[in-house]
Amino acid sequence: MSRQHLDVDPSWAVGGKPHGGYLVRSAVEVALDAEHPHPMAVSAHYVSSPDAAPAEIDVERIRTGRRVATSRVSLSQGGVSRVEVLLSSGSWEADSTPYWSAPGGPPALPPVEDCPRVPSIGPTGRVVGYFDHVDTRLDPSSAQWAVGEPQGHAEVRGWMRRDDGRDADPLDLLVFCDALPPVTFDLGLMGWVPTLELTVLVRGLPAPGWLRVVQRARLLRDGWLDEECEVWDSADRLVAQARQLAGYRLEE
Amino acid sequence: MSRQHLDVDPSWAVGGKPHGGYLVRSAVEVALDAEHPHPMAVSAHYVSSPDAAPAEIDVERIRTGRRVATSRVSLSQGGVSRVEVLLSSGSWEADSTPYWSAPGGPPALPPVEDCPRVPSIGPTGRVVGYFDHVDTRLDPSSAQWAVGEPQGHAEVRGWMRRDDGRDADPLDLLVFCDALPPVTFDLGLMGWVPTLELTVLVRGLPAPGWLRVVQRARLLRDGWLDEECEVWDSADRLVAQARQLAGYRLEE
Repeated sequence: MSRQHLDVDPSWAVGGKPHGGYLVRSAVEVALDAEHPHPMAVSAHYVSSPDAAPAEIDVERIRTGRRVATSRVSLSQGGVSRVEVLLSSGSWEADSTPYWSAPGGPPALPPVEDCPRVPSIGPTGRVVGYFDHVDTRLDPSSAQWAVGEPQGHAEVRGWMRRDDGRDADPLDLLVFCDALPPVTFDLGLMGWVPTLELTVLVRGLPAPGWLRVVQRARLLRDGWLDEECEVWDSADRLVAQARQLAGYRLEE
Repeated sequence: MSRQHLDVDPSWAVGGKPHGGYLVRSAVEVALDAEHPHPMAVSAHYVSSPDAAPAEIDVERIRTGRRVATSRVSLSQGGVSRVEVLLSSGSWEADSTPYWSAPGGPPALPPVEDCPRVPSIGPTGRVVGYFDHVDTRLDPSSAQWAVGEPQGHAEVRGWMRRDDGRDADPLDLLVFCDALPPVTFDLGLMGWVPTLELTVLVRGLPAPGWLRVVQRARLLRDGWLDEECEVWDSADRLVAQARQLAGYRLEE
């Protein structure tokens, strides 16, 4: 077991609480090694509400195989678990050709220049800091809730890239799979939806350039919804698939 | 941390290897409690190939909240980890009404009596023991590979119930999400596909009667595919969603 210290970067926080995808990315990063440099499957269970304060990351390597390494990673603050992660890591080849793909490719989006960037300060004054790091341009037709006209489709689509100009790496995909605004906005539920569980499958190395990201829900029931996310790269390849279980609250 | 002994039931094995869904079900069962009797989100990473031999299940309760409890569960044999599981458990109400559902309901299937039961001994003599426990009736149009005519859709659909006549409980859903024949059969790849990672979201308590199960793939690339599974109950409600990352091998 190895322990690493993490200075949680407050600029990633949402209303003072560190972004879940940022925490998972930080936890996974320290569990990779030279033979298994890329996440393959990442399962995160969010245990308690994190603070923008120092954290400890404990990594236990369960097995190191030739193709896959399995690790247990725990991110805690003051001895209290915030996020528990299981990681299967390996090594993706650049530019390998898919053997088979289901019909239906990346989401159809208007040109980037016709998609407005999501600001990190919303109309209510709430700060969603990670939008300073993740440059997110929403397809206006999937963001009509932003002008008070939710469409009832529970789908949000857009372009995404790093704000610092670097191309996305596989770790960024873990963040991007949890970065679109909640699809519940499109159902007129304007509250934030805290993630209980998030699993990301990384399917390959993203090609340089803008990524296309789409998020959908299938079912809202008993206060819980699924959010399904796909990330496609500029070569029209599916590079990440994710699903989360998150909580929603009906407005009183 | 608590430890429980598991006598692995060899009648669930596939070619001598215990069924992954059966192992996960066994691991999760011992981590539930009276206040959190149902799985909500289960993430399993398969670490090494299990044997039909005694196993130990170690449970560590990370946090016990009012609505959700989080547990880390490890199933091992002779000190070697076979499956690592993260579990968020809670309590589902019977018969709650969904707040919102996406268009598209359960898979359309022919009547049960027109769907042949999957036998536990295949044409090659391979024993798939869990089909003695899980009564699985395949939609013939999604199982043309069984007569040498794969359709190239990578989708398999069918009816499912327990063989012993009892109605399915939420733990059975963990098994059913990993019980259909591999969708790769429909692509003409007739090898078994070992699961690396499986996440199941249980979305409610299944109503009595037959369940409808559909499994699909999105992408085969670099030796790995996703298998996406939905389980619908007799009241037309989505009661489980799962996705796994599994390995495939091209025939030489």
